[in-house]
Amino acid sequence: MAGVLDGLRVVEGSAFVAVPLAGMTLAQMGADVIRFDRIGGGLDSGRWPVTADGHSLFWAGLNKGKRSFAVNLSDPRGQELVAELICDTASGCYLTNLGQRAPLSYDALAARRADVIVVSLSGTRAGGPAVDYTVNPSMGFPMATGPEGSSDPVAHVLPAWDCIAGQMVVNGLLAAERHRLRTGAGQLVELSLKDVAGAMLGNLGIIGEVAVNGVDRPKYGNALYGAYGQDFMTADGRRVMVIGLTARQWKGLVKATGTAGEMTALAERLGVDLGDEGARFTHRHAISEVLRPWFAARRLADFAADFDAAGLTWSEFRSFAQALSEDPDLGPDNPMFEVIEQPGIGAYPVPASPLAFSASGRPGPAPAPVLGQHTEAILADVLRLPSAEIGRLMDAGVVAGPARG
Amino acid sequence: MAGVLDGLRVVEGSAFVAVPLAGMTLAQMGADVIRFDRIGGGLDSGRWPVTADGHSLFWAGLNKGKRSFAVNLSDPRGQELVAELICDTASGCYLTNLGQRAPLSYDALAARRADVIVVSLSGTRAGGPAVDYTVNPSMGFPMATGPEGSSDPVAHVLPAWDCIAGQMVVNGLLAAERHRLRTGAGQLVELSLKDVAGAMLGNLGIIGEVAVNGVDRPKYGNALYGAYGQDFMTADGRRVMVIGLTARQWKGLVKATGTAGEMTALAERLGVDLGDEGARFTHRHAISEVLRPWFAARRLADFAADFDAAGLTWSEFRSFAQALSEDPDLGPDNPMFEVIEQPGIGAYPVPASPLAFSASGRPGPAPAPVLGQHTEAILADVLRLPSAEIGRLMDAGVVAGPARG
Repeated sequence: MAGVLDGLRVVEGSAFVAVPLAGMTLAQMGADVIRFDRIGGGLDSGRWPVTADGHSLFWAGLNKGKRSFAVNLSDPRGQELVAELICDTASGCYLTNLGQRAPLSYDALAARRADVIVVSLSGTRAGGPAVDYTVNPSMGFPMATGPEGSSDPVAHVLPAWDCIAGQMVVNGLLAAERHRLRTGAGQLVELSLKDVAGAMLGNLGIIGEVAVNGVDRPKYGNALYGAYGQDFMTADGRRVMVIGLTARQWKGLVKATGTAGEMTALAERLGVDLGDEGARFTHRHAISEVLRPWFAARRLADFAADFDAAGLTWSEFRSFAQALSEDPDLGPDNPMFEVIEQPGIGAYPVPASPLAFSASGRPGPAPAPVLGQHTEAILADVLRLPSAEIGRLMDAGVVAGPARG
Repeated sequence: MAGVLDGLRVVEGSAFVAVPLAGMTLAQMGADVIRFDRIGGGLDSGRWPVTADGHSLFWAGLNKGKRSFAVNLSDPRGQELVAELICDTASGCYLTNLGQRAPLSYDALAARRADVIVVSLSGTRAGGPAVDYTVNPSMGFPMATGPEGSSDPVAHVLPAWDCIAGQMVVNGLLAAERHRLRTGAGQLVELSLKDVAGAMLGNLGIIGEVAVNGVDRPKYGNALYGAYGQDFMTADGRRVMVIGLTARQWKGLVKATGTAGEMTALAERLGVDLGDEGARFTHRHAISEVLRPWFAARRLADFAADFDAAGLTWSEFRSFAQALSEDPDLGPDNPMFEVIEQPGIGAYPVPASPLAFSASGRPGPAPAPVLGQHTEAILADVLRLPSAEIGRLMDAGVVAGPARG
């Protein structure tokens, strides 16, 4: 199946995580996504992790299923070709984090095609520089992460703001394209990485916690905030996370660990109702004192099957390699993954979209292109240039095909 | 302005972060989003943070701008009303994380309205229980987070997988609705929280790092992975994050700190080119030894303006309260925020969507509804029930208006 967005063409001028992820998300739903890069590669062409001979696993991961157009962006003819691609009848959709500069600014593109849609992601709303690694500290999360009582900030490893912003770029494009389908009008859609984070701070109630409650949330270690959830070490040195967020989860956890009597005694001693989620959070240390010896006395295999059978919400802490080798959801058992051959890198498990559409299907994962792999085809099939003209552009270094290895 | 999705109606049956965030994201772009809940409130109605008298700041944050329909979901007539709402001519769009059970399963709804679109988020792909707090440990991130050399897992505080999944629910809905606009066909769109995380593990190159390079990424503290970026303490006890990811950022950092001579000497001593991003990562400790005394000798105010003027990519680590009080991007200077009155809570700064549409605008933030606030209006204006019938449904406890406080 071709994918739910079959027939949509999008041009992407980008680097790093958010906008490449947005383009890839669209490509994995069936859109024809053309990423252009300067000849030799953009800012993220060598981004780590890289293979022993320098091929970027990061780039391969975030550019799956796109077509690659390599062009000299310092040459006005190169810029002109990109503007033509964006404004082509079959596209008119442009995603970028490269800023708004003519001839690839919204204004310049709209002068060429009035109904063009441009989604532009910046670092800050004022257009200043910001990356996930700087946005996150400025928002407060690292100061609330890590062991209770510590004052050292702990940065996250997942570039979460980039991932969220990338999905919002997709939202913005699809919402604007829906508007265009219905009204004929295009537009500029703008967002900043920092605003994505600032809005989420409000959405999650953290701004209210400061502004209304006057509370500056401290570090709570690995505890679930606001109800019960905690990590424990098992007798065989494994570490598990167990959840008692809802009443059902809490009752299930107490039952599966056979601690009902102790929990009742604890509640009586404290004079609280542990059926109340807030009470479970306030008294989480006392609850954990009951549960810790239970886990410490058992190996993971002693209770894992029982926990699953009881429908508990729990998991094990694993390293990346352990996760890959032990979790069937990350292996061939999961139809989202396929082992495919990535040119220059080799064969390894690659994910398709997490979204499965019952009528439109889920295209299997496709490799990332080699830089410039589709330059010639795009000039021919999108811009309909004759082959002699394409040859002249190649010879003049305005565009480039794939590097000869 | 009404918002880019003006005219789209979506019904939401949900709890917690991901699906409520999805519905709110659509509402903030102008969709009419109807969230239904059992009478008295769903699983997340009291989710922390809460105010002193128990109103949930979390619920208020994730349900802004929706309409609330309170209904007895144990009563077949209540279920029937919800199914009618979902299948109404003006909607036909349903977002849920409540599972697939008749009469609110895709199959049952499609029997009623063939072109219905249902986006269904589950915990695991098999429909098992999973929350952000359990998905994250199972994926490996906590074992790669925190101080170098430590073996204690550190869980993230931002429910990042929920936030990403919520935005993907929006993608799925908009992509399926686009398909329906063009072909007339509806469909079931399924995704799981765990698959969202598993796919991202691949997208970011981490699966390749394990499978191709045989590397199980350890903890790198607060260092930027794969190039240069590190946190430093200043003379006045502030902590900053500085970035040298791109060549331009790196040169800017070296210039602004006046360390060019020392960096040249360091590169000569190591026999490497610090212009190479991988070399900067490999030798990050040596680079940090040069920079640490520079920051330790200066107060934040001594260099902040110079860093900004030089266009450096950097930020300060702040607590949530500090961020709110010190950062103009989180204050009234930012048009994304407005101080609005949230019933039961009071007035505080609330974000609109981070997405600004040049032609369709960005509606200002709206408060979250009181539970059941729109039950009567929805029965009248969507289901077109006569008022006597609405009265009978209320009296019989099939539906409920807002609680009288």
